[in-house]
Amino acid sequence: MQALFFDNGLFIKEIPVPEPAAGEVLVKVLYSAICNTDLEIIKGYMGFRGVLGHEFVGRVNSPGHPLHGKTVVGEINCSCGECYLCLSGRRTHCTNRTVIGIAGHQGVFADFISLPSGNLHIVPDPVPGHIAVFTEPLAAAIEIFEQQHIKPSDTVFIFGAGKLGLLVSMVARLHGLSYTTFDPVIEKVEFAVKMGLNARSSAGLKPEEKAEVCIDCTGSAEGISIALSHLWPRGTMVLKTTVADPAKPDVNSIVINEFTILGSRCGLFEPALNLLERKLIDPYPMISGSFAFKDIIKAFESAKKPVNRKIIIDHNT
Amino acid sequence: MQALFFDNGLFIKEIPVPEPAAGEVLVKVLYSAICNTDLEIIKGYMGFRGVLGHEFVGRVNSPGHPLHGKTVVGEINCSCGECYLCLSGRRTHCTNRTVIGIAGHQGVFADFISLPSGNLHIVPDPVPGHIAVFTEPLAAAIEIFEQQHIKPSDTVFIFGAGKLGLLVSMVARLHGLSYTTFDPVIEKVEFAVKMGLNARSSAGLKPEEKAEVCIDCTGSAEGISIALSHLWPRGTMVLKTTVADPAKPDVNSIVINEFTILGSRCGLFEPALNLLERKLIDPYPMISGSFAFKDIIKAFESAKKPVNRKIIIDHNT
Repeated sequence: MQALFFDNGLFIKEIPVPEPAAGEVLVKVLYSAICNTDLEIIKGYMGFRGVLGHEFVGRVNSPGHPLHGKTVVGEINCSCGECYLCLSGRRTHCTNRTVIGIAGHQGVFADFISLPSGNLHIVPDPVPGHIAVFTEPLAAAIEIFEQQHIKPSDTVFIFGAGKLGLLVSMVARLHGLSYTTFDPVIEKVEFAVKMGLNARSSAGLKPEEKAEVCIDCTGSAEGISIALSHLWPRGTMVLKTTVADPAKPDVNSIVINEFTILGSRCGLFEPALNLLERKLIDPYPMISGSFAFKDIIKAFESAKKPVNRKIIIDHNT
Repeated sequence: MQALFFDNGLFIKEIPVPEPAAGEVLVKVLYSAICNTDLEIIKGYMGFRGVLGHEFVGRVNSPGHPLHGKTVVGEINCSCGECYLCLSGRRTHCTNRTVIGIAGHQGVFADFISLPSGNLHIVPDPVPGHIAVFTEPLAAAIEIFEQQHIKPSDTVFIFGAGKLGLLVSMVARLHGLSYTTFDPVIEKVEFAVKMGLNARSSAGLKPEEKAEVCIDCTGSAEGISIALSHLWPRGTMVLKTTVADPAKPDVNSIVINEFTILGSRCGLFEPALNLLERKLIDPYPMISGSFAFKDIIKAFESAKKPVNRKIIIDHNT
């Protein structure tokens, strides 16, 4: 089968169809999408070498298995179920985990992927494939609200109107929160406003404007420092950025201001699928382009452009 | 009156007795004590120039005032009571605050200090002066438990068996927590063990030993990184260290492990005085030496030695 390989460069390579291990099923990939993490990996993040990609929707192709023929999305962390972290409800942090397309597991930029059946969630019928592919990043946005009680009286600043920033902003809006989304790129702000979001250019942000909760979706080391400077003392800063060249914020300011810094990563798929099915979150306008799998290297070039949002890969054409 | 002045060096200087402003009372200092923050200030932290010192017990000397003649301790943040932070219950973070001996307010290494009467707490009769002087650092230790729900099932690692680390360890022991205190200096570990605390050398700490809550009382930039490496994913790291040369931890590891990093500074005096009065915390063994005020520069030399703990200044002799 064809797969997009990363090894000091991106190239399409012929590799064997994976053989499902015990507990795994084979999934034919229907749609996949490019995440900023993919772009960071090709800059060196995680030191990953292999088949990239972790956002997908597919169809189970394991005759005889109860899931055979079902349209599914899949959680990206493959956990052991037996370690202290798994048994204490932290499967996404499993000591022995692999992460598809990120660490130790083949990614989804391929014709097929083999995954533990426990990682799969059936996509409800009304959710089309090009929308279901947003389940993973939407779950990552919802994870913030799973971790942190954001109160109706809290002012919330969301830094970054990129792919994740837009999803987080949509969830904040859904919750009725008093939020503002900031970005230095004026085209991104205009797009967010067009989506009905409360967005402003971060260039106009005055030093005295502060929030009780700042959410970093900047994807940049400097973004974190800017966000911290707009947090009220005893406020919470939610960090979403992982970058190849990691940021290093000043610890004194965390202590003096009694800030809470909360790292946030992958989320649960059920609430994300629920919001997509009920159309309470509509990510459709975020699709900037769709490429056939054979053109995936062009798709990566397109995804790197700052004004572009979600680039979808159609594995059917 | 005599005062210990810091301005690119420590020296005793004759300055006028302060004139209490509206709402302030004059306090004769009876005992004071040297804190690590004082040692960091003389290395450049906060860029402070003036009379140092913020840990003290004194007697109010404002005839006619209801507190006249009372033995008191004093909260170190002088707040305006009117800004957003004061009115939302964050007086220690007041936008317009001064901090005695740290920022914009004369310190207590002097014969007298003038303080807002609202900052003062009457010392209960059974608490002697050389014990009452621990109120401020004990309040800072208790602040951790005010901010963070540490569960009976949590394993707690306390990094640093210095002055603050010992107080935090005593409070953790009081709460019945499963805690271990670590320090690289064997004399400090031995002292903690002699105090009945559960302490070990950090040299023997294996990479796989982890805790749900790590409390940094190391006072060192490297200490924070070591503590982070022993925190379980989704665990909480409480930061107490402020240093002249601030630490900069790797943000990727915070995001990937979904750590919570909680900055912690000053605490409330009431619970600290309560524990001292009921003798539930006995800091007496922590006193390494007592110096007359005229010998305060020698006292600073003594306080800099790593094996020394609390150095008390007796302003009566």
